Amino acid sequence: NCSSHTKTDSSSIPPPDHRQLAVQQELFTTSIYSPGSPILLPNGAKIFNRLVEFLRQQYARYGFDEVITPTIYKKALWKKSGHLENYSDDMFTVTSTSPSRSDATEGGEEDEYGLKPMNCPGHCLIFASQRHSYRDLPIRYADFSPLHRNEISGALSGLTRVRRFHQDDGHIFCRPSQIEEEIRKTLDFVRVVYSTFKLGPYRLTLSTRPTEHYIGTTEEWETAEGALKRALDASGQEWTINVGDGAFYGPKIDIILRDSDGKEHQTATIQLDFQLPKRFELEYIAPAPEYERRGETTVDPDALNETGRVTPVLIHRAVLGSVERLMALLIEHYNGKWPFWLNPRQVMIVTVNDSQPVLDHAKAVQDVLMGRQGSPEKPVSQATNFVVDIDDRQVPVGVKAHQAKSKGYSVILTAGPRQLSSGTITCDLSRLESDGEVLNQERIEMLPSELLEKLKAKADAYL
Amino acid sequence: NCSSHTKTDSSSIPPPDHRQLAVQQELFTTSIYSPGSPILLPNGAKIFNRLVEFLRQQYARYGFDEVITPTIYKKALWKKSGHLENYSDDMFTVTSTSPSRSDATEGGEEDEYGLKPMNCPGHCLIFASQRHSYRDLPIRYADFSPLHRNEISGALSGLTRVRRFHQDDGHIFCRPSQIEEEIRKTLDFVRVVYSTFKLGPYRLTLSTRPTEHYIGTTEEWETAEGALKRALDASGQEWTINVGDGAFYGPKIDIILRDSDGKEHQTATIQLDFQLPKRFELEYIAPAPEYERRGETTVDPDALNETGRVTPVLIHRAVLGSVERLMALLIEHYNGKWPFWLNPRQVMIVTVNDSQPVLDHAKAVQDVLMGRQGSPEKPVSQATNFVVDIDDRQVPVGVKAHQAKSKGYSVILTAGPRQLSSGTITCDLSRLESDGEVLNQERIEMLPSELLEKLKAKADAYL
Ligand SMILES: [Zn+2]
Ligand SMILES: [Zn+2]
Repeated sequence: NCSSHTKTDSSSIPPPDHRQLAVQQELFTTSIYSPGSPILLPNGAKIFNRLVEFLRQQYARYGFDEVITPTIYKKALWKKSGHLENYSDDMFTVTSTSPSRSDATEGGEEDEYGLKPMNCPGHCLIFASQRHSYRDLPIRYADFSPLHRNEISGALSGLTRVRRFHQDDGHIFCRPSQIEEEIRKTLDFVRVVYSTFKLGPYRLTLSTRPTEHYIGTTEEWETAEGALKRALDASGQEWTINVGDGAFYGPKIDIILRDSDGKEHQTATIQLDFQLPKRFELEYIAPAPEYERRGETTVDPDALNETGRVTPVLIHRAVLGSVERLMALLIEHYNGKWPFWLNPRQVMIVTVNDSQPVLDHAKAVQDVLMGRQGSPEKPVSQATNFVVDIDDRQVPVGVKAHQAKSKGYSVILTAGPRQLSSGTITCDLSRLESDGEVLNQERIEMLPSELLEKLKAKADAYL
Repeated sequence: NCSSHTKTDSSSIPPPDHRQLAVQQELFTTSIYSPGSPILLPNGAKIFNRLVEFLRQQYARYGFDEVITPTIYKKALWKKSGHLENYSDDMFTVTSTSPSRSDATEGGEEDEYGLKPMNCPGHCLIFASQRHSYRDLPIRYADFSPLHRNEISGALSGLTRVRRFHQDDGHIFCRPSQIEEEIRKTLDFVRVVYSTFKLGPYRLTLSTRPTEHYIGTTEEWETAEGALKRALDASGQEWTINVGDGAFYGPKIDIILRDSDGKEHQTATIQLDFQLPKRFELEYIAPAPEYERRGETTVDPDALNETGRVTPVLIHRAVLGSVERLMALLIEHYNGKWPFWLNPRQVMIVTVNDSQPVLDHAKAVQDVLMGRQGSPEKPVSQATNFVVDIDDRQVPVGVKAHQAKSKGYSVILTAGPRQLSSGTITCDLSRLESDGEVLNQERIEMLPSELLEKLKAKADAYL
């Protein structure tokens, strides 16, 4: 397979399929023992971990705190959250395999767990475990836990129709007056993320209060919808309204991505929730609680003298949505031409011959680029996380370089006696994503440390 | 609470308990809805993630490739692996909550999953999914998946007796001739990790072939035990032998840590396994397979002309063991005095007054130290992952500094009009772990960028 040499002008070429590309790129595999739970191979795990790391970097700006929460909760929790009533078809039940390990002495109900399909109830438990003042809000929890939803087996496919997946999940607990600002920030977060991937364009839709069945007052809904509309206006993105299409527990914003084939994908969501905080009796203490509940402020000293309990607003939000599904989109979007920072095949060093000095030189360059030099007495702390492979087979160097390109390596390095004597490496950087800078120098001689700086700059720019 | 001011000379002070310390430091909480599955709060998740990141850094040196594997597998897998027969008391069963989502049309067996108690069978599936030559080996997979074991509810406690936990799990698939080198490297990895935590001393024990019930030939066992003994000798650590104490499927090395109270903890393990590769019919292709199986080499051209299938040796290894249990050990070991790199409370900025310019200066210093500066148009890529809090309450600055110290912050910074005008920050670095360097300058004036470099150097040295 040599994708860089295939013609791309013919419309008869089928659109890329992430499942086929995943085989070529060794990204994931599936097993009859785990239908719907893809197994991420080292290359797929690298992409996954880099996406998570990318989001964690953004959390420093957007103020999310990561938490690590259980996988199974007693059925009583799912009763409290409403999932048992409304969502049990999609859930898996967990029980003791051996009756001797059952928690309940009689009956069995007590010993049943639900395998979590979402993180929200767990985050509500965390919020409820501490006392909160209005000064502490907003509180933003992020969670990358694996989630399970029991899709029917016929529907399972690749990374898109799965039973086990991860969300870049986040829950914001905020004051009613903070809704607009939080939505603004989230829309900004979405914009930054999708423009990094050069994915898009996307459109935004606002789904508003259903006419019939909803909780809360129409006043609460109008206040919240007003905040969402102002945040949408401020985003500078086009948006439309789906009147009456909101969930019964709150309005939401969907981000709908259009791919290069014109197909639409619902990825990110922002869902307001008036219900779950009530079910979990969440509260914070604020002055002038009557005003606080309406998202208003007052200077009335009598009102301010009073303090009371107010229910926070909960915002569910995911920027990538399902990390697996977004990976599938990216696999097809980049179609083998990964930007350097995401590429699971970043650097290939091809050796001119297999003499020991040349192999040692290749190894030394690899050590520099991977950041694993340093004293063996000390732990590694400067690992770059770059993938740097060596092809030292007794095969002509041109053939090896060609094969590395076909496999999708971003950077091809040549190590031979000449490079060894000058302490350098010959670099083909022509496939490095360029961001304006001209990089068509087919072969350039560099010190390994110079190249490392260049690669770090690329990765830090998410290119 | 002000632990730095309590006397420590009295033997009547009970030894630190990680559950109490976790409350003071807001590390984790528990819930009646998730017995045995601790909920890591933001501070606990920070420690957890840093431990994982620390291990990933070492994986660059020790050649582990991370994979991301399913949480639930069909019972048929656990039958194949032998867990259903030998381990089912400790396992949870997973089924569809709704019969309509069941995979099986009749019966029910087909629809039953086991919630994974360990990663090995999954890693065997990965190995089996590809063809391997002897040149590909060793292959080393790492996995940080959540694992579940059904401990009886009476035994559950804190982070030490749990039902849900994570291992820094790794499986090495190698040639018989590679056992010694792999064990050497693993023992080296263990040494580097525990000396970083200043945990120890520890002792190593080798458990050898049981006299009665074992699989494989005595010759295989002797070869493997010889390799383990040579690796133990080379480690420079003291080690003892537990004759006949090995599992029926292979010899093992335990690392037993002695804590400051003299209590012993079994943390890391290295377990050889002759069985699982057979159960999963794992194989690789090698020349002179008869020699290869015995871990021997030959120059006999006739033997080398033959190629055949050989079963790899599997080495299970965990360096921390259970990440949660190691966290519990570390919480007690450091007893509120975390080294900077692990501290969930790293830097506190106390403001001298609450004027806007002073607050802005505090915020600007925070941005520098957290690495979240830069254009809002561009994604963050230089986040330092440091925890930098601001205390801007209208409370005397000395009181705020004192409270921050009591809470365990490593670095206390003071921001006021004077610091604002000079663009600096006043730093109390006396509580930073020092590594020989004298750091008792109670109050030193620095540029935020200078301080950042100092803190990065500390964190990179794992101090
Ligand atoms: Zn949610
Ligand atoms: Zn294992």
